[in-house]
Amino acid sequence: MKAAIYHGREDVRVEETEPQSLGPADVRVAVGACGICGSDLHEYAEGPIAIPEDEPHPLTGETLPLTIGHEFAGRVTETGADVDAPVAGDTVVVNPIIGCGECQYCTAGEHSLCDRLMNVGIHGGGGGFAETVVVPAENAVSLPDDLSPEDGALVEPLGVGLHAVRRSGLSAGDTAAVFGAGPIGLAVLQSALAAGAREVYVSEPRAARRELAEQLGATEVVDPRTSDPVRAIKAATDGGTHTAFEVAGVDETLTQAVRTTRKTGTTVVVSVYEAAATLQPNLVMMGERNLVGSYGYRGGPSSRQGEFATVIRMLQDGRLDADPMITGRIGLDDIVEEGFERLRDPESDHVKILVTP
Amino acid sequence: MKAAIYHGREDVRVEETEPQSLGPADVRVAVGACGICGSDLHEYAEGPIAIPEDEPHPLTGETLPLTIGHEFAGRVTETGADVDAPVAGDTVVVNPIIGCGECQYCTAGEHSLCDRLMNVGIHGGGGGFAETVVVPAENAVSLPDDLSPEDGALVEPLGVGLHAVRRSGLSAGDTAAVFGAGPIGLAVLQSALAAGAREVYVSEPRAARRELAEQLGATEVVDPRTSDPVRAIKAATDGGTHTAFEVAGVDETLTQAVRTTRKTGTTVVVSVYEAAATLQPNLVMMGERNLVGSYGYRGGPSSRQGEFATVIRMLQDGRLDADPMITGRIGLDDIVEEGFERLRDPESDHVKILVTP
Repeated sequence: MKAAIYHGREDVRVEETEPQSLGPADVRVAVGACGICGSDLHEYAEGPIAIPEDEPHPLTGETLPLTIGHEFAGRVTETGADVDAPVAGDTVVVNPIIGCGECQYCTAGEHSLCDRLMNVGIHGGGGGFAETVVVPAENAVSLPDDLSPEDGALVEPLGVGLHAVRRSGLSAGDTAAVFGAGPIGLAVLQSALAAGAREVYVSEPRAARRELAEQLGATEVVDPRTSDPVRAIKAATDGGTHTAFEVAGVDETLTQAVRTTRKTGTTVVVSVYEAAATLQPNLVMMGERNLVGSYGYRGGPSSRQGEFATVIRMLQDGRLDADPMITGRIGLDDIVEEGFERLRDPESDHVKILVTP
Repeated sequence: MKAAIYHGREDVRVEETEPQSLGPADVRVAVGACGICGSDLHEYAEGPIAIPEDEPHPLTGETLPLTIGHEFAGRVTETGADVDAPVAGDTVVVNPIIGCGECQYCTAGEHSLCDRLMNVGIHGGGGGFAETVVVPAENAVSLPDDLSPEDGALVEPLGVGLHAVRRSGLSAGDTAAVFGAGPIGLAVLQSALAAGAREVYVSEPRAARRELAEQLGATEVVDPRTSDPVRAIKAATDGGTHTAFEVAGVDETLTQAVRTTRKTGTTVVVSVYEAAATLQPNLVMMGERNLVGSYGYRGGPSSRQGEFATVIRMLQDGRLDADPMITGRIGLDDIVEEGFERLRDPESDHVKILVTP
């Protein structure tokens, strides 16, 4: 089968590879759509970062080259001997997080906090930029008939956004500020509105993303290259927002986000940082502000009360909308030129590009 | 009357000054004991920091020179025409925080968050290093008969420690780490134990303070100059504490505190920082850790449910103990040589020095 294989920085090759073997508790998924994530782009442009290079991943035992892609949905084509559900023919979205199952976090059901965490499509175990992927059946979450595999491919980033809003403690009627309107920032925006935010302000340098934020319901968008977002948002909210979301991953926006919150406000760090940031702790101390981290999503891979299942429900009833975030659809062969290279262009209007293997 | 007046860095003079005038809602307090706070020492050694120098304070209208000292208790000698309680002869501890009364924080009862906050003894309004101080009657909290003015002088720092522990969300049975065992660190230690902490680890370079921490119930003390406190505490707690308290105010200990917590753990910033600190936000993000600020104490200056009243109650029933923290008692004339100069000596064994005017 064909797969996009990561060999190193700026070296992703679409190659023929052997389909993975199927264990008794696994299912094989024929990928219908797989989104290119910001972290895929980071790995392409500046990696390997999380992709294991020399040291084999503790759970997968793999190092590069390996197949990437972790935001995907598709159809089950084969199931292991011990698998009752899903069955062949079901459309599923894959929850890519797998913990060791043994540590204090996994045994408490908090797999996303496992120190040896594996992400299918980052750390090994195949990936969504391939014709098929084999995953544990419990990580294959059924998609209802009214949702497409394209909706399914957006469940993962929408889950990250939902989890961030849940971590913020945002109450109905609160105000929010979102720094960065890429796919995760827009997912945060949607979840903040779904949570009853009274106003959501978005700071984003790219015009196309600001427009999309407005289309998705942002109260006001700010271009941080032409005006000070902290000053603008504090003025609009009479002193600062209840919550802020750092979804840009740059030093400056961490302080901007914290300063934008009112005293006692909460800033959620959603981005990965490549280096340490500077922060004056007095902003936290004297304002009794809160800085909290949000990583992935919670609630067990296929739990009905988990955040993956919640996103699916919210896509069904329209509180979340995948479609406006999808700005490109390409084939697997075009993943480098029409995918990674387009997204790394700072003038690009793209938000989420889906790959159809 | 005599008062210690701050004229500038390393320039505190004990001088004759006019007693303050008494308004209809005020009481005059003859100071029995006033503690030298770490922030007084900062003002002496490196200030003026919070003490208004050129710009008059928005509430007091004062600039230096002004009387300092904000951790004090004493006896009421005179009351304004509108004051029902306390009455002359009562022993009181002064809650030094006064808000503007008009902003969104003050009107919600959160005076300690007021942007124009005044602290008696820092921003003007007299101070505890004087024979008498005039304060609003509602800031004079009655001390029960079984507590001395010396206990009363410790209510303020113990309130800071109690509030920090309340902000941490520490639950009975949780583990805690305290970075810095000065008066506030020791107050945090006592409150964490009162809150039912299973184990409290303390990192502190000064031997005398480590000994005092042990005496007050620390599970284990670490000298960060001879061993890595993060490694030691993480090993002792099987991966990290539930809570950590940054009470040292140096760049390095912020990261140490955050790294010492387990994933999902909470670090409380209690210190004032003189400059920005460096922090890798991934520690917060990937570990879903929390960083929260704690400033002063809450609950209205003399509310029976407020944290000042709570500390008084906890001193009465022995859950908090002021006495071991008091390492020196001096007269007002000796405040510079036997007070500030002793405390700034890194080899000093002192923790809390009380001044008796």
